[in-house]
Amino acid sequence: MIIKMKLNAKKEEIEHVIEILERRGLKVKDASGDEYSVFGVIGDTTKIDIRDIEALNGVEKVTRIQEPFKQVNRAFKSGDTVVDVRGVKIGGGNFTIMAGPCSVESRHQISEISRAVSKSGAHILRGGAYKPRTSPYSFQGMGGEGLEILKEAREETGMPIVTELMAVSLVDRFEKDVDIIQIGARNMQNYDLLKAVGRTKKPVLLKRGMSSTIEEWLMAAEYIMAGGNPNVILCERGIRTFENYTRNTLDLSAVLAVKRLSHLPVIVDPSHGTGKRWMIRDMAMAAAAVGADGLMIEVHNDPENALSDGAQSLTPEEFHETVAGVKRILTVVGKKF
Amino acid sequence: MIIKMKLNAKKEEIEHVIEILERRGLKVKDASGDEYSVFGVIGDTTKIDIRDIEALNGVEKVTRIQEPFKQVNRAFKSGDTVVDVRGVKIGGGNFTIMAGPCSVESRHQISEISRAVSKSGAHILRGGAYKPRTSPYSFQGMGGEGLEILKEAREETGMPIVTELMAVSLVDRFEKDVDIIQIGARNMQNYDLLKAVGRTKKPVLLKRGMSSTIEEWLMAAEYIMAGGNPNVILCERGIRTFENYTRNTLDLSAVLAVKRLSHLPVIVDPSHGTGKRWMIRDMAMAAAAVGADGLMIEVHNDPENALSDGAQSLTPEEFHETVAGVKRILTVVGKKF
Amino acid sequence: MIIKMKLNAKKEEIEHVIEILERRGLKVKDASGDEYSVFGVIGDTTKIDIRDIEALNGVEKVTRIQEPFKQVNRAFKSGDTVVDVRGVKIGGGNFTIMAGPCSVESRHQISEISRAVSKSGAHILRGGAYKPRTSPYSFQGMGGEGLEILKEAREETGMPIVTELMAVSLVDRFEKDVDIIQIGARNMQNYDLLKAVGRTKKPVLLKRGMSSTIEEWLMAAEYIMAGGNPNVILCERGIRTFENYTRNTLDLSAVLAVKRLSHLPVIVDPSHGTGKRWMIRDMAMAAAAVGADGLMIEVHNDPENALSDGAQSLTPEEFHETVAGVKRILTVVGKKF
Amino acid sequence: MIIKMKLNAKKEEIEHVIEILERRGLKVKDASGDEYSVFGVIGDTTKIDIRDIEALNGVEKVTRIQEPFKQVNRAFKSGDTVVDVRGVKIGGGNFTIMAGPCSVESRHQISEISRAVSKSGAHILRGGAYKPRTSPYSFQGMGGEGLEILKEAREETGMPIVTELMAVSLVDRFEKDVDIIQIGARNMQNYDLLKAVGRTKKPVLLKRGMSSTIEEWLMAAEYIMAGGNPNVILCERGIRTFENYTRNTLDLSAVLAVKRLSHLPVIVDPSHGTGKRWMIRDMAMAAAAVGADGLMIEVHNDPENALSDGAQSLTPEEFHETVAGVKRILTVVGKKF
Repeated sequence: MIIKMKLNAKKEEIEHVIEILERRGLKVKDASGDEYSVFGVIGDTTKIDIRDIEALNGVEKVTRIQEPFKQVNRAFKSGDTVVDVRGVKIGGGNFTIMAGPCSVESRHQISEISRAVSKSGAHILRGGAYKPRTSPYSFQGMGGEGLEILKEAREETGMPIVTELMAVSLVDRFEKDVDIIQIGARNMQNYDLLKAVGRTKKPVLLKRGMSSTIEEWLMAAEYIMAGGNPNVILCERGIRTFENYTRNTLDLSAVLAVKRLSHLPVIVDPSHGTGKRWMIRDMAMAAAAVGADGLMIEVHNDPENALSDGAQSLTPEEFHETVAGVKRILTVVGKKF
Repeated sequence: MIIKMKLNAKKEEIEHVIEILERRGLKVKDASGDEYSVFGVIGDTTKIDIRDIEALNGVEKVTRIQEPFKQVNRAFKSGDTVVDVRGVKIGGGNFTIMAGPCSVESRHQISEISRAVSKSGAHILRGGAYKPRTSPYSFQGMGGEGLEILKEAREETGMPIVTELMAVSLVDRFEKDVDIIQIGARNMQNYDLLKAVGRTKKPVLLKRGMSSTIEEWLMAAEYIMAGGNPNVILCERGIRTFENYTRNTLDLSAVLAVKRLSHLPVIVDPSHGTGKRWMIRDMAMAAAAVGADGLMIEVHNDPENALSDGAQSLTPEEFHETVAGVKRILTVVGKKF
Repeated sequence: MIIKMKLNAKKEEIEHVIEILERRGLKVKDASGDEYSVFGVIGDTTKIDIRDIEALNGVEKVTRIQEPFKQVNRAFKSGDTVVDVRGVKIGGGNFTIMAGPCSVESRHQISEISRAVSKSGAHILRGGAYKPRTSPYSFQGMGGEGLEILKEAREETGMPIVTELMAVSLVDRFEKDVDIIQIGARNMQNYDLLKAVGRTKKPVLLKRGMSSTIEEWLMAAEYIMAGGNPNVILCERGIRTFENYTRNTLDLSAVLAVKRLSHLPVIVDPSHGTGKRWMIRDMAMAAAAVGADGLMIEVHNDPENALSDGAQSLTPEEFHETVAGVKRILTVVGKKF
Repeated sequence: MIIKMKLNAKKEEIEHVIEILERRGLKVKDASGDEYSVFGVIGDTTKIDIRDIEALNGVEKVTRIQEPFKQVNRAFKSGDTVVDVRGVKIGGGNFTIMAGPCSVESRHQISEISRAVSKSGAHILRGGAYKPRTSPYSFQGMGGEGLEILKEAREETGMPIVTELMAVSLVDRFEKDVDIIQIGARNMQNYDLLKAVGRTKKPVLLKRGMSSTIEEWLMAAEYIMAGGNPNVILCERGIRTFENYTRNTLDLSAVLAVKRLSHLPVIVDPSHGTGKRWMIRDMAMAAAAVGADGLMIEVHNDPENALSDGAQSLTPEEFHETVAGVKRILTVVGKKF
């Protein structure tokens, strides 16, 4: 942490800042120039909020040079984290595809889609039982009945299931019933929920918030790990920018950033990332090329009549072609599929 | 709702789209040009997700021309909503100031600050008992003990209290103990929480999400109203942009937009909006000039030693000056203080 | 400037970095912690591009702590710059209003509008003779004939004129004919043009680029001042964000930032900032409340038939009311009108 | 174009809108609902600025359903545009790599780099003779001398050269000396410059502006084509977002969007897109996977001592590996290299 004092900072202000930091067990080293007083702070600064130091009189600017995250930090652990989901390995050279409809709509729908995506090579079945919808008047998901349908599909196909959790009150049920608990983009900083899944040992798929920096995203993962749950999978799903031709702007460089900063696996969701069905295959191939550990793709047997997100869902046939394209890329980048 | 078909849309596709809409009780009117088939959809389209229609074969683009929100819509209700908080009126020509520290830190701190801000003219006491913090290692608030301290301050000064709710499990306690339940920016689309406060009749202060459009913000308010709670107060607190000189970019034009689109009151939080103590007074005056219904301002008796957000907290003296400046603006714009 | 080396930076790499900096006449001070090597760089670092230092082997991150701008820097000059435009003073406690149509369309139009805005209190006449339009098929302005019309209006009303320059080849003509040369948002980093106006002594109105940080904006002003022209007036006109209810997001906190960082005057353009006629008056009042040195407002005698930007133009009557509202705010903030 | 009138629009206002449109040779079709009057406008609406129609009394919102660009539109021309640069084909199934240093620094440097990149497979040599720099105090390029050095390298290696043009006064010289004229991101809406290169027949590489929508980017290309120059190559180089871990956010979905909307070739610049040397290879491979027509990559023989952009320049060895990786991807996607 580097602290730059104001041009006209008083001697007492400078001493006060130093005293406060030393009281917290940190060492302060002078790096002042001709005009400004500047200090380097040595020690574990992860527990200090730089905004609190900026509140001190005479301080102009505080810059963090140590990452604020610990357990998710690559420096904290040698080697990649590999999350084991009922035998399906995520991370560490494996490439994993999660596929299925946006929403669980019926037993028939899930049975049909799960068999199709499984045959095409998907490893994990996705499907929303509880749906976050912008409008209170839109279909909110089948709820508990949806969970039961997903479990039956798991029985039928052997695929583990991933589905979104929105309410702390359902954590126990999800822990018992599902294989990966998804935290959606809108809840990425719902700390109550992060703490709740942190208390389980269940794999958690943490989507990046719509306007979250990479650092904030890793800090959200830190909440889960700090609670005692090391099984975190990150998911890039596009960020909100001024461009609205696409639903979001898929930030593939974030995959590279996460891989450098953290040991956690990171997958990509080109369905939400683009919002456009015809872009999904090519963006999925690009995600594989850049080094992602897997994909999450929306597939619907009847996108036209999907109760949600039909515009960004592939048909089973399109999904089949997408997997084929991705596999060809994986032979180039050398990931196990 | 306007539907534009693709250039080469087939006759069956066009008929299929029309059929689907008519099945949902809507009327379809042709507005086709020479090249493209275009339809206007007549009836209540608020329950239709435009993305679902875009999923239909042959459809190129769907544009909503009716706002998707109903109960928050100004067209839904004549006159401004005035929320009554223990006799303090918010909206409808009144100007209301909520002030207090970011976090409740001690009985002594709250007692001192609440008396100071009350004397300077604040109507409502703010203070966080449960704090959303980016880092799991930062101070997370005093919790229930903090709520008790706020209640004592209410007893002492007569000021109603507003504090942030982060967990559905605490809704009952908040309903009983506090006067306004605050939903923070990070939870603006935490639908589980929105539904929970929608089931109470307690006034709700709904902060705008960091990257929420005005429409999404009003849709979040719609969730609360749709649950049966009409007492919603909106709060603009800055949006995330590329500019990072300020913590956020305070969007004062959003106040005007909300006032035109909705009957709900809207206040402004220049503390989070700028993140800089020295900007607060002037931005507060600008918010008053633009027509906001009030302000939420962080005040701390010892910003240097605040456990959170000291950098954006005013001292009681600075707050006093800020209120004075705001009052002078209110005489110009004609709001009751 | 603070340089943080990588965790595993080699001794030679560290020495190499130090050597390079010392060769450029800078002093290097060690501020290393237990894990990372960190250096403070002392001396005039404004000529160093931090990205170049980041290119050195072993370097992880470079943080600038000194502003990269000099002549525009408040530290460079005591007191506010006051730009004198044919006797109209801009900056330093004065409040100046520039008003007129987006485009010059005819002699009659300009004559009518200029007389109206002058009567209502505007100090300077604006009007585009050369227009930057997104489409090559839209009206591109009247060109030289437009300039002549503006000069006649100046003759008639005595108001100085401001108009946008887009081509270096016209600098001489603008220098001779107009009173303030406007550099538009799209050309804020057109360095060829900035250098050209920097070689004149004519007052320059420099609009903030659509996605320019405050620092980049001040660096653009630095180009003009570095060329020898001290007469720069800054103009905040809204930035591009994800919110598209308004044409841009007017960033009023930028006025405060500029006033702290620089001695140059800064005015606000609520017409482009919002793109909505009905928002202009209130945002103009907010701009006055926050401490801007003036306003630039689009006024049209017949907005319906304006050849450009009618949607954000006030009628002369609306402009009159706007000036009245702004004047009342100015009595509160104590600016001369 | 769809026009929605206000809820309370008067009959005269509606008639007036219709009259204005009909006067411009357009047909108006009624698509009104129960509450709102809505019209579809039929005919060539590309010359109409929707903001001008929104200025009309009684109008609430205007939505364009026809793209505003014509000559760049895929609907305008069957098949892909293939730009021929001294025998090197860009677009239409070819994959083209442009490589070289950010700035031309010396004869020796260019000679060394050009031979290296040519041997590794680059088709075109890039290098900046005139440099747009944020600071007026940074190195501004070698100018004319730099152009001569590039020409010598062309002589030596046979590679065509691409370099950035910033000043209209240099158009003739560039037309004579270089093979592709680059328009940089900062000048994407410098219409004076666009018109000038539109009057030549020289291939133009048009970089996307930092905050330009895809539509604005295509409209800038339309300026060049409208001037009579069909040889436009687009270049995605990252957009400005809130995320600042990377220099920009590389928007690979824009490649897909451009390919659908336009017949023009589009290449990707991962150097500026990420600003980080270690990200370039993987993002280049992703760009190839997504279907780009080529790449522009910064290569420097001595990145440490580069006068600009060393942090994002590859060494010749790293470039060699990057080309190898890209080639493997191209065998998958089936592009000619």
